[in-house]
Amino acid sequence: MQPIAVDAMGGDNAPTAIVAGARRAHEERGIPVVLVGRPEEMGDVGDLDVIEASEVIAMDADPGSSVRTMKDSSLVRAAEAVRDGRASAMVSAGNTGATMASALLRTGRISGVARPAIATPIPGPVGEPTVLLDAGANAECRPEWLVQFAQMGAVFSTARFGIERPRIGLLSIGEEAGKGSPLVKETWGMLDAVDWDALGAEWIGNVEGRDLMGDEADVVVTDGFTGNVALKSVEGAAKNIISALLGAFDSSDEAREGAAMLLPALAPLYERFNADSYGGAMLLGTKGVCIISHGSSGDVAMVNAISIAAEMVEGDLVGKIGKAVAD
Amino acid sequence: MQPIAVDAMGGDNAPTAIVAGARRAHEERGIPVVLVGRPEEMGDVGDLDVIEASEVIAMDADPGSSVRTMKDSSLVRAAEAVRDGRASAMVSAGNTGATMASALLRTGRISGVARPAIATPIPGPVGEPTVLLDAGANAECRPEWLVQFAQMGAVFSTARFGIERPRIGLLSIGEEAGKGSPLVKETWGMLDAVDWDALGAEWIGNVEGRDLMGDEADVVVTDGFTGNVALKSVEGAAKNIISALLGAFDSSDEAREGAAMLLPALAPLYERFNADSYGGAMLLGTKGVCIISHGSSGDVAMVNAISIAAEMVEGDLVGKIGKAVAD
Repeated sequence: MQPIAVDAMGGDNAPTAIVAGARRAHEERGIPVVLVGRPEEMGDVGDLDVIEASEVIAMDADPGSSVRTMKDSSLVRAAEAVRDGRASAMVSAGNTGATMASALLRTGRISGVARPAIATPIPGPVGEPTVLLDAGANAECRPEWLVQFAQMGAVFSTARFGIERPRIGLLSIGEEAGKGSPLVKETWGMLDAVDWDALGAEWIGNVEGRDLMGDEADVVVTDGFTGNVALKSVEGAAKNIISALLGAFDSSDEAREGAAMLLPALAPLYERFNADSYGGAMLLGTKGVCIISHGSSGDVAMVNAISIAAEMVEGDLVGKIGKAVAD
Repeated sequence: MQPIAVDAMGGDNAPTAIVAGARRAHEERGIPVVLVGRPEEMGDVGDLDVIEASEVIAMDADPGSSVRTMKDSSLVRAAEAVRDGRASAMVSAGNTGATMASALLRTGRISGVARPAIATPIPGPVGEPTVLLDAGANAECRPEWLVQFAQMGAVFSTARFGIERPRIGLLSIGEEAGKGSPLVKETWGMLDAVDWDALGAEWIGNVEGRDLMGDEADVVVTDGFTGNVALKSVEGAAKNIISALLGAFDSSDEAREGAAMLLPALAPLYERFNADSYGGAMLLGTKGVCIISHGSSGDVAMVNAISIAAEMVEGDLVGKIGKAVAD
């Protein structure tokens, strides 16, 4: 396997935590990795190879224009390494839009894919995470794109979480077929007409926001505007509730003592709900595996992201998506 | 004050818990209440008056056709009592769409209001709840409706939570003005042109899903499709996290002991995050105060809903909304 290209300059903790995670993925798990960025800022990279890139696209930079003008940026160079076959996948905790744009512009779309989508796993208390897509790549969508998102999401759910017969839901505001926006109503009919058996998946109709963390569906399809709002609503609720809990746990000596006794019971939940455990979101539909990690990623998140990238390359995710949308 | 009309037949716990809550609101808080529904099913209503209604609109019935055909239903009779001045407000934990439709068809819209909207308070760990609207009344919206939602939401935030200068945000997928769907982009410009000072409010631009439980905005405006998805995403996340926590609390003797020690610290959080504390959502824009309580409402939720209804009547919410949209 060609190495995983890791954008050493992207993310709130770059480059230190990114390089540390990349080294751990290589040294502890034997995954081939190549770092992309400014070698002079990376510190000790151990045995890892480096692809030099002199520019860094800022977290808040405009994605389109950055990727067009900063041709020697770590993101663009990472995407070029994938395009040229020197790397088998790219991973970045940097600017989400620029990661997407560089992958799209340099490696291009899989034949037959109209639009790539961001697939984000949302963990819940029971079962495997639900894959939400599009989580923000396309603010406006056509119904036929959503059908492809569903096909790509089904393939990803099987490849990533081992779901044998992923249940596909369409995000709406009521379970009945007639409920929702015009986009949802039109998409419902098209999804209902797909031969999901042939793809090894199951179409379950409309689902609601409450099902994102539940165990009703394995793949939830929506446009990138609604998906991004829903994802951030879930993330914000989780963050605010957990922060309120941590405050309560630390509010008195008695509470601190009680919290300490609960620690063994809470640790597995922390692991399950922690975004770092999942390594980030996946861009589906481009000719190359591309993982978009949280900006706040530390070394553990990077180890997981790189491991998942390697797994998706070995499982031929790109080839399987191409086949699913062509069928 | 004319009494608050309470739909005794609506909700998962109707009529027992609804009647119990109505009696408590009257007996403990001195609020005038009239029950609407089937007297023979209500049990002991104490001193409360009853408006008889022989039909009950089921929780899952089609709202429009139910309201049109079931003219002697508790919801339609409650709305008529408000229209005829025999009641000053209506409260129901029944079918949301039918509650909305009966209020809209019987009492009508406030002059100048294009579309009523459902305003739902979302509590967070800090500060007063954020008012989200439209939480589901209108799956498709025009930009000018969203401007009115913002005006109505500002009035409601002040009346309901005492916010002196409510901060108005537009729900989008990025904070910059250019981010979002075509509806958001067009609405942004219209909201930016409103004289918010004159209304005693402040326009803060785009906000994101993560801000719904945060303390960034007091009023968050969106279309009813996005709003309903976001609300249910937040509710689902909260429910799933809390259910996972309760499972952990009960997973061993040590955990149970720790949880017992944490109880005093957790009780205020439970109160703060419990939907029952807020009595439900409010339909804004109709000629009458209309509260749409959670279907799962018990007697405490009903006491709170009836109290809030009385408070909104006394504060002339309807008159203030009429003034805000006319200015």
